[in-house]
Amino acid sequence: MYRYPSSLEKLISLLSQIPGIGRKTAQRIAFHVVSMEEEKVREISNAFIKAKAKTKVCSICHNLSEREPCDICTSSERDSTKLCIVERPIDVAAIESAGVYKGKYHVLGGVLSAIEGTGAEDLNISDIGKRIKRERIKEVIIALNPDHEGEITTHYLMSFLSPYNVEISRIGIGLPIGGSLEYTDFVTIGEAIKARKKIK
Amino acid sequence: MYRYPSSLEKLISLLSQIPGIGRKTAQRIAFHVVSMEEEKVREISNAFIKAKAKTKVCSICHNLSEREPCDICTSSERDSTKLCIVERPIDVAAIESAGVYKGKYHVLGGVLSAIEGTGAEDLNISDIGKRIKRERIKEVIIALNPDHEGEITTHYLMSFLSPYNVEISRIGIGLPIGGSLEYTDFVTIGEAIKARKKIK
Repeated sequence: MYRYPSSLEKLISLLSQIPGIGRKTAQRIAFHVVSMEEEKVREISNAFIKAKAKTKVCSICHNLSEREPCDICTSSERDSTKLCIVERPIDVAAIESAGVYKGKYHVLGGVLSAIEGTGAEDLNISDIGKRIKRERIKEVIIALNPDHEGEITTHYLMSFLSPYNVEISRIGIGLPIGGSLEYTDFVTIGEAIKARKKIK
Repeated sequence: MYRYPSSLEKLISLLSQIPGIGRKTAQRIAFHVVSMEEEKVREISNAFIKAKAKTKVCSICHNLSEREPCDICTSSERDSTKLCIVERPIDVAAIESAGVYKGKYHVLGGVLSAIEGTGAEDLNISDIGKRIKRERIKEVIIALNPDHEGEITTHYLMSFLSPYNVEISRIGIGLPIGGSLEYTDFVTIGEAIKARKKIK
């Protein structure tokens, strides 16, 4: 079988291991690298190292940040009575791009999944209760992807939150079943936030 | 506007500059990097540098290789009377994966394009004539993508090749108009090679 030059094959194989990156995409990147200026390749190479070294997980909301706690958690301009629960850091970015939500966030770090063996203890759930009390949160907005695992996790969170004296809502309108926050345009996300439905 | 941590934003922006890599794909890579082991990130970072440093362009066929001339050009097991003309190195890999062609290759490095301002002098066309004589080539197979620019380039090559005493064919069956070699499965590519149509 034909093999790419081994240094190219190595890069393709490493990039292909990233979830969501297929071999074709990895090939595109690798082949393009050969035609780039050496200086630019060095810049990309360094950017990987720096992104890993500098980006930390905020101990309060578990979003990614270069500061601890992160800028959103320490901001005095944000409505600290509202807490939006999302699955991943990329979802915070998706909601922020809509520009209609000015509260705080809480990143679960995943969703409940029987297939992947992810239980509640693997997610950042237990500290939500402490945040509600300490930060005097009045409304919790659940903004998980509207797929099977997102639904199960939403129901779990609803029962977890029921003892607390908070309003619970979830974003709904605009996000199709089976869809993903990451791939939804910001107008739709904005509408979904505004049209959130109270569920408790 | 919400900004990702700057080191993450830097990586996203550099990756987005690669043709065919959208911002969403760049984000996926960057966010995943944060959750990877530092050792693995270092490995990816080094793979970029090495791929650039070690991969050369073969002076005969213009394909990518770590050797000069490349393994295909120096192979005694390949039918040196056949020459397959492709646009890019990635197309050589696509055809090789079909496993039905055992001749040599010639990579143009692009196609004629009025929009991009690519003329015949920007492509590796002039040395095809020398190769035909020196390597005693009997058949030239044109395997460009069946899109607008590929068609124009194929016609240009047909007239360029007409003074030479070679059979000219082009792959045809199986590749849809507007499609791309890179994204065609190897069975279809194999059929297209086998069903090539003589045009001179």
